[in-house]
Amino acid sequence: MSKPTLGVCYYPEHWPEERWESDAARMAEVGITYVRIGEFAWSKLEPRPGELDFGWMVRAMDTLGRHGLEVIVGTPTATPPRWMMDKHPDMVAVDANGRPRNFGSRRHYCFSHLGYREESARITRLLIEHVGQHPALGGWQTDNEYGCHDTTCSYSEAARLGFRTWLKARYGSIDALNEAWGNIFWSMEYNDFDQIDLPLLTVTEPNPNATLDFRRYSSDQVAAFNKVQFDLLKAARPDLPVIHNFMGRFTAFDHFEVAKTLDVASWDSYPLGHLDVSDESAEVKAQFMRQGEPDAQGLQHDIYRAVGRGRWWIMEQQPGPVNWASYNPDPLPGMARLWAWEAFAHGAEVVSYFRWRQYHSAQEQMHAGLLRPDSEPAPAYHEAMQVSRELAATGIAGEARKARVAIVYDYESEWAWEVQPQAKGFSHHAHVRAAYVPLRKRGVDVDILSAQTDTFEGYDLVIIPALFAWNDKLRTAIANYEGHLLIGPRTGSKTGNFTIPQALAPDLPRNMLDARVVRVDSTNPAVEVSVRGGGAVRHWRERLETRAAVEFEDVEGFPVLVSQGKLFYLAASGDRALMQRVIDRMLDEADLPTLNLPAGVRCRVRDGFRVYFNYGSTSATLTRADDETEYVVGSESMGPAGVTVARLAKAG
Amino acid sequence: MSKPTLGVCYYPEHWPEERWESDAARMAEVGITYVRIGEFAWSKLEPRPGELDFGWMVRAMDTLGRHGLEVIVGTPTATPPRWMMDKHPDMVAVDANGRPRNFGSRRHYCFSHLGYREESARITRLLIEHVGQHPALGGWQTDNEYGCHDTTCSYSEAARLGFRTWLKARYGSIDALNEAWGNIFWSMEYNDFDQIDLPLLTVTEPNPNATLDFRRYSSDQVAAFNKVQFDLLKAARPDLPVIHNFMGRFTAFDHFEVAKTLDVASWDSYPLGHLDVSDESAEVKAQFMRQGEPDAQGLQHDIYRAVGRGRWWIMEQQPGPVNWASYNPDPLPGMARLWAWEAFAHGAEVVSYFRWRQYHSAQEQMHAGLLRPDSEPAPAYHEAMQVSRELAATGIAGEARKARVAIVYDYESEWAWEVQPQAKGFSHHAHVRAAYVPLRKRGVDVDILSAQTDTFEGYDLVIIPALFAWNDKLRTAIANYEGHLLIGPRTGSKTGNFTIPQALAPDLPRNMLDARVVRVDSTNPAVEVSVRGGGAVRHWRERLETRAAVEFEDVEGFPVLVSQGKLFYLAASGDRALMQRVIDRMLDEADLPTLNLPAGVRCRVRDGFRVYFNYGSTSATLTRADDETEYVVGSESMGPAGVTVARLAKAG
Amino acid sequence: MSKPTLGVCYYPEHWPEERWESDAARMAEVGITYVRIGEFAWSKLEPRPGELDFGWMVRAMDTLGRHGLEVIVGTPTATPPRWMMDKHPDMVAVDANGRPRNFGSRRHYCFSHLGYREESARITRLLIEHVGQHPALGGWQTDNEYGCHDTTCSYSEAARLGFRTWLKARYGSIDALNEAWGNIFWSMEYNDFDQIDLPLLTVTEPNPNATLDFRRYSSDQVAAFNKVQFDLLKAARPDLPVIHNFMGRFTAFDHFEVAKTLDVASWDSYPLGHLDVSDESAEVKAQFMRQGEPDAQGLQHDIYRAVGRGRWWIMEQQPGPVNWASYNPDPLPGMARLWAWEAFAHGAEVVSYFRWRQYHSAQEQMHAGLLRPDSEPAPAYHEAMQVSRELAATGIAGEARKARVAIVYDYESEWAWEVQPQAKGFSHHAHVRAAYVPLRKRGVDVDILSAQTDTFEGYDLVIIPALFAWNDKLRTAIANYEGHLLIGPRTGSKTGNFTIPQALAPDLPRNMLDARVVRVDSTNPAVEVSVRGGGAVRHWRERLETRAAVEFEDVEGFPVLVSQGKLFYLAASGDRALMQRVIDRMLDEADLPTLNLPAGVRCRVRDGFRVYFNYGSTSATLTRADDETEYVVGSESMGPAGVTVARLAKAG
Ligand SMILES: [Zn+2]
Ligand SMILES: [Zn+2]
Ligand SMILES: [Zn+2]
Repeated sequence: MSKPTLGVCYYPEHWPEERWESDAARMAEVGITYVRIGEFAWSKLEPRPGELDFGWMVRAMDTLGRHGLEVIVGTPTATPPRWMMDKHPDMVAVDANGRPRNFGSRRHYCFSHLGYREESARITRLLIEHVGQHPALGGWQTDNEYGCHDTTCSYSEAARLGFRTWLKARYGSIDALNEAWGNIFWSMEYNDFDQIDLPLLTVTEPNPNATLDFRRYSSDQVAAFNKVQFDLLKAARPDLPVIHNFMGRFTAFDHFEVAKTLDVASWDSYPLGHLDVSDESAEVKAQFMRQGEPDAQGLQHDIYRAVGRGRWWIMEQQPGPVNWASYNPDPLPGMARLWAWEAFAHGAEVVSYFRWRQYHSAQEQMHAGLLRPDSEPAPAYHEAMQVSRELAATGIAGEARKARVAIVYDYESEWAWEVQPQAKGFSHHAHVRAAYVPLRKRGVDVDILSAQTDTFEGYDLVIIPALFAWNDKLRTAIANYEGHLLIGPRTGSKTGNFTIPQALAPDLPRNMLDARVVRVDSTNPAVEVSVRGGGAVRHWRERLETRAAVEFEDVEGFPVLVSQGKLFYLAASGDRALMQRVIDRMLDEADLPTLNLPAGVRCRVRDGFRVYFNYGSTSATLTRADDETEYVVGSESMGPAGVTVARLAKAG
Repeated sequence: MSKPTLGVCYYPEHWPEERWESDAARMAEVGITYVRIGEFAWSKLEPRPGELDFGWMVRAMDTLGRHGLEVIVGTPTATPPRWMMDKHPDMVAVDANGRPRNFGSRRHYCFSHLGYREESARITRLLIEHVGQHPALGGWQTDNEYGCHDTTCSYSEAARLGFRTWLKARYGSIDALNEAWGNIFWSMEYNDFDQIDLPLLTVTEPNPNATLDFRRYSSDQVAAFNKVQFDLLKAARPDLPVIHNFMGRFTAFDHFEVAKTLDVASWDSYPLGHLDVSDESAEVKAQFMRQGEPDAQGLQHDIYRAVGRGRWWIMEQQPGPVNWASYNPDPLPGMARLWAWEAFAHGAEVVSYFRWRQYHSAQEQMHAGLLRPDSEPAPAYHEAMQVSRELAATGIAGEARKARVAIVYDYESEWAWEVQPQAKGFSHHAHVRAAYVPLRKRGVDVDILSAQTDTFEGYDLVIIPALFAWNDKLRTAIANYEGHLLIGPRTGSKTGNFTIPQALAPDLPRNMLDARVVRVDSTNPAVEVSVRGGGAVRHWRERLETRAAVEFEDVEGFPVLVSQGKLFYLAASGDRALMQRVIDRMLDEADLPTLNLPAGVRCRVRDGFRVYFNYGSTSATLTRADDETEYVVGSESMGPAGVTVARLAKAG
Repeated sequence: MSKPTLGVCYYPEHWPEERWESDAARMAEVGITYVRIGEFAWSKLEPRPGELDFGWMVRAMDTLGRHGLEVIVGTPTATPPRWMMDKHPDMVAVDANGRPRNFGSRRHYCFSHLGYREESARITRLLIEHVGQHPALGGWQTDNEYGCHDTTCSYSEAARLGFRTWLKARYGSIDALNEAWGNIFWSMEYNDFDQIDLPLLTVTEPNPNATLDFRRYSSDQVAAFNKVQFDLLKAARPDLPVIHNFMGRFTAFDHFEVAKTLDVASWDSYPLGHLDVSDESAEVKAQFMRQGEPDAQGLQHDIYRAVGRGRWWIMEQQPGPVNWASYNPDPLPGMARLWAWEAFAHGAEVVSYFRWRQYHSAQEQMHAGLLRPDSEPAPAYHEAMQVSRELAATGIAGEARKARVAIVYDYESEWAWEVQPQAKGFSHHAHVRAAYVPLRKRGVDVDILSAQTDTFEGYDLVIIPALFAWNDKLRTAIANYEGHLLIGPRTGSKTGNFTIPQALAPDLPRNMLDARVVRVDSTNPAVEVSVRGGGAVRHWRERLETRAAVEFEDVEGFPVLVSQGKLFYLAASGDRALMQRVIDRMLDEADLPTLNLPAGVRCRVRDGFRVYFNYGSTSATLTRADDETEYVVGSESMGPAGVTVARLAKAG
């Protein structure tokens, strides 16, 4: 799997069967290896309950196989047919207003519904039976984009019953739950698990513990749902990879947990759509509307490399304008190539474009493909072909080089701060990004670690920003670590039961860090307080009681960055300038090499190559780095959307 | 009906019977001809089921008739009494959240409810029976402001059943529906019409076809509802006009369709209220808060002239501050006169002020009338009297002069782009306006044509902006047309089944226009790209593959305006400057005369008179046009809210 | 009760019993007199229906009493335990979308539910029985923060039935109701009280009368709910005060009415949280984020002094950052002292900090206390101690000096303008504030009067801004008053039945004020019209027909301030500059003394002392006033958050 290659998403059921042959031939011409099919085709496979038609799928796989293509078959469980609603009228997701959602689009099922979980097993078994031994079969995809359209948390009756069982298992007794949740606070004590309802439509916000546990429960149901399919697919074909296509920035469930029953993580990368719906400023959205935000994709790549334990794909790559954002710009010419190269540089095994041909009907008719609706090539067709040739020419293979810097990323922390932000909009992800971007601007590669990591060995610098609560593994990793640590604001400010730890945040042994957060000052992010020496703090500022060395302090005299040996603690949220200063300081402390990159340019090292990509809309000129011997793709002069690949003296 | 005259809306049931006489006398004094009554009086006519009291209405008509006034009797079906809810508990409209709406205001009925449709027939028959032969009867109004308060689409059980029947009639078989809707896309296929629910509360957006068909169905129910009353009223009094009072900018149903069972179209004109709730910028709202936006009324006038097939009224004319906008300013002195003159210039037969006397109680107590609550004259009382005298003095009659420029206006296109905007806020109406305003600034009169028009004969220039889908009549009109055509962005980009046409947009024969839209670039309207020569494109830009002549291109080199013979195609949404350039170019091509109007001044020709109205808040000086012989009202010097009427050398 | 003293809110049930002793000792050390307990402890007092445990509460009171502390026992009715929901499943509040709210936070009861009202009586009786004779008992608190989380209006079945009964009592016959409400308007007439539903989910806004009556009904239920507890508590211990802790700026019920069954009014003062959730501008929020808006607290103090008929407390005083606003800043050092001093200066008997120790769990874990979660003193601990010493040192006692200026404050007016604003955002409270602030900037003390006041004796100036409707008492007060009156815009513009009075607003006898409002011009507040001489009008402008003397007029020539003898009428909403001019003029007319205060500094006189507080974030220098003999706390030089107390020559 070490040779990176291309894929495409294809819907043979949308097109006349006579067109399949030429489609397959042209895919091969582009240089595509993998073709994903089937993930929305349940009504075509089983038009009525029990009435099966797998023939067309087998014929499609025959055709694709004849052209040397390998097929990833998706289980169609994200789109149960209409008749399924009659079998299980209560299977639908219920939203946070208590309204059952209706049939007519997709993802209209509740993860807690055991009847539907069994239906999902049934269709998976049928797929295995009918195409599981097909020679063109190259792997499986489970479902499609778990959590899309805000469906992770469902407030259904099935969820209510499931949640009670889950709580009983977690706490054992109702007294233990009352104690853990602090239910004495507002007479919220329960006498029995059967009294517990889902935390919705309460008069004011529910107990944060109740909500966080429901978030945990809901995340667990996604994992349980995936496991059903994974177990069946692995049992049938232990040799083939089981993959799920996650969505970047959908943090409602723990991707690390779900990936425990996956062989490969993949994600669906829509740089322009994601920027449009992001909370970036209007300026950033305008500046990068045709490219995507320069660090948004890289961070997701690094997250999914961690989620997939090294193995990851792009399952859906934006090829042109999409349909689902508020505005859907045409990408800069070359971006379909740049995005693919960027993914490969970060270690992707496969970049699969979505979709082969723009479909002229239904919800996504304005979503571009490699082909236009009239079957003529869209710009991305040629760009994909170019990538395919360049991959072959360079011979790039192997893995993304292990980074010397790592950042801890934790889904539970994202939930916790959503549950109780204290400062509106406070986000774990945003703090990870705030540390990630200044590293990337210095040309520094980054690895992502889950909060279940028990060793930091091999890293010179580890960063832990805005982590909800410590756990034993992470405590062990820290205790045994000899490198530099940067621990960010709010980290360790809660126990796992969402209470303030007795020793107060950051709740580290005094010999490690003699500091405690005695008070928090949360303010509108527009109100900034300058830091002596440059940059500013805003939004979240901690009042520290500390004997550690004060590295930075703000103009009001409050410590901002303190250190005790190799452990640094950042006691505030900073603006971009401050975060660059903090990161520069840490890189300096850890004696890590950096690059001198033009604005808008980023790079990543894989397999003895450093790949540069220019996200800027103007040309940029590279400075040759010491470890580079030659440019094998492009040159030091990069146009907008340009890609340059440098060979390194020593393979990474 | 060719002599324009005034009307007023009157509620005898609000006032002591002894006051009717003096009210009628003063109406006559103002110069009023028509008095609309009864449209909210059901509970006064039938206080309990079957318990009738039409005596007061007869007596009111007697009194009004004695003063030479003609009465328009409204059917009171917009306000079913409380007891009706007990007869038909399921008659209420259900909103897009699935919530039945309650009694206590108005329009609390669902157009799909057949039981209520029969009640509406019953009260119409009773009106015919009791006042249908009254000598003062001058016409009928059906219901009141169909669609007001967002009631066109109702998600009731009645609508669900009605929609299924409608779909069965449209598609014949469920397979045909699945095919037309592209239901294969996400396994949305139905096995049976009975499985189809209304498109609400789906997990993500429903199939655009499903939604558009529901919009069409809902529009059809309004037409069906109106037809019931029309048929009864026409059968009883073929000699009297049946009118409905539409609301400008309520586009949820097809006004052309509803008007098929009307003799006269009318609309309710509230220039200040409408500006307040419009999406105009804060600057425009501040600039024109006491006048209304200068082209908003004119466009509606032209639309309703088309809707009424030449016959149209203002049924409700704002006389002073209203009550229902966020802010309700006092109009500039003179506006109640200006608005009436503007309507007459656009061809109105009657301008009827709403209402006679400000009512001191209930929801609209802050809505001004011609009289104050204490029966003293409000400013509009005197302004109306002035209009009445000026009409008589000029002797203006006849019709609005047929324009040489026409714009196609299409309700379905408005629905379609709401269903699937692709660029947030993309609107057919806005594109019509964008073409209309620069024409009006050049003093050019405009006619509106429905998309069911089959000939463009008599026009030198026809504009078709942002039209959803072609139909056979319009194709015929284009094919046979010898004048200049300007076809706007997105036109013909869909088939009637909401799919991308095989030949791609604009889907015209190559010998007519050799151009196809191969990609769409939709962007935040704040991001503009300059066009060479002036103006800018933004929001919606099409990537054209074309052999037509490029007339305008943007600075990025994309064609903006192309031409092939007399057919021009505009491939983008433009800012005001660009739209003025495009329109100026078209006027030039078509060799159409223009006027040199001061900013804020507009004009319209009717019956040998050109009427100027000054929407500006400062004075303006007219340049006498070649075809004008004298000013019969006002002069070349126009104050704010000024009206000047010029006599033309040759009657138009 | 004349010696001001400190209190604290304490939750013994949150802490191990062995810690109570040291807590009590430290409270005494701080100088605290009153300790409020119990108001959220129902599940601890009655863990299961009928299973009682009052022992812990008795022991807690024993402990507190041993340290000389007096205990205020709260009835725990704001937090019914989970088992209560099984006894009364329909007891929950129903929101304006018709959704019952769930258990899991607090205030999940509907004030109309008679079953729960009886439960509230039962637990009150149990409290009386178990602790009613405890020697440490110092008073009672009923419930907690009535109306918090928008729970005054509940759309439950109980409310529906209660509302009908209430209407029957108010109107006697359905015809009288139809007449009073003007139901003829849109055929909204009822045949029977049983047809009346709650005014929610109507198609457009319901009749303002219906809504206002429902607001009145809902307010009455709060009063009725409180009366049940009050009657029991007073019967048991006539000697002890019954108090409720209101929330400032929660105007959904009539605090004057509720306080009829209270001995002492108290309110919960959270200056920073309240500023954050207020509608103040972003600039003001940034400027005062660590202090609170300078006049917001003072106005509430004055309101609650009136509500409590002279007797009032702060029951909950913000001590540090809170948890419930969007952003929760750290107060400026000294603010916990300043806020207490300000309250005492305005006449507070007790300032009670919320809470003793920050609780480490549940919803409010980020809400500071006098102690940190680790039991170390938070800054407010020391500030409270300082206040306690300063109070003793000055010997301040007595009452707040009676002011010479009064403003009429009326909850019903706030409801009325919410029901029918006519200008979006028009608010009675805002108009009271607009008059209050310029008075306070001149160092003028203000008393608040309810609209049920029947004499203005003793005041030199009375201000009545934006009052909904006159009543007989107020008419009497005006008729007999010989001082100066400033009557504000919109006052008297309605009858009590929400109709325009026949004589038009302001509906005063012509010999008193010969002026009538013939039209209202409501505009976006951003659009200002200058007033000759300074300042501007905006938002609400009345067109007056008047023979009174025009004092101020705007540049468009409309009268702004008119006078007839000592009665002044302000016919518009003004900006800050205009309001200062108007108030300065009135002070001048009434010959009232003013002070020269630095910006950000305010003051209030009590018991022969004038207390100054500096809300500014910079230092300020006082000018010694003529009536002051010495500074007994602080000096003329005030730092940020500074407090200076001057002794007056003559006690006030
Ligand atoms: Zn996707
Ligand atoms: Zn109307
Ligand atoms: Zn509180």
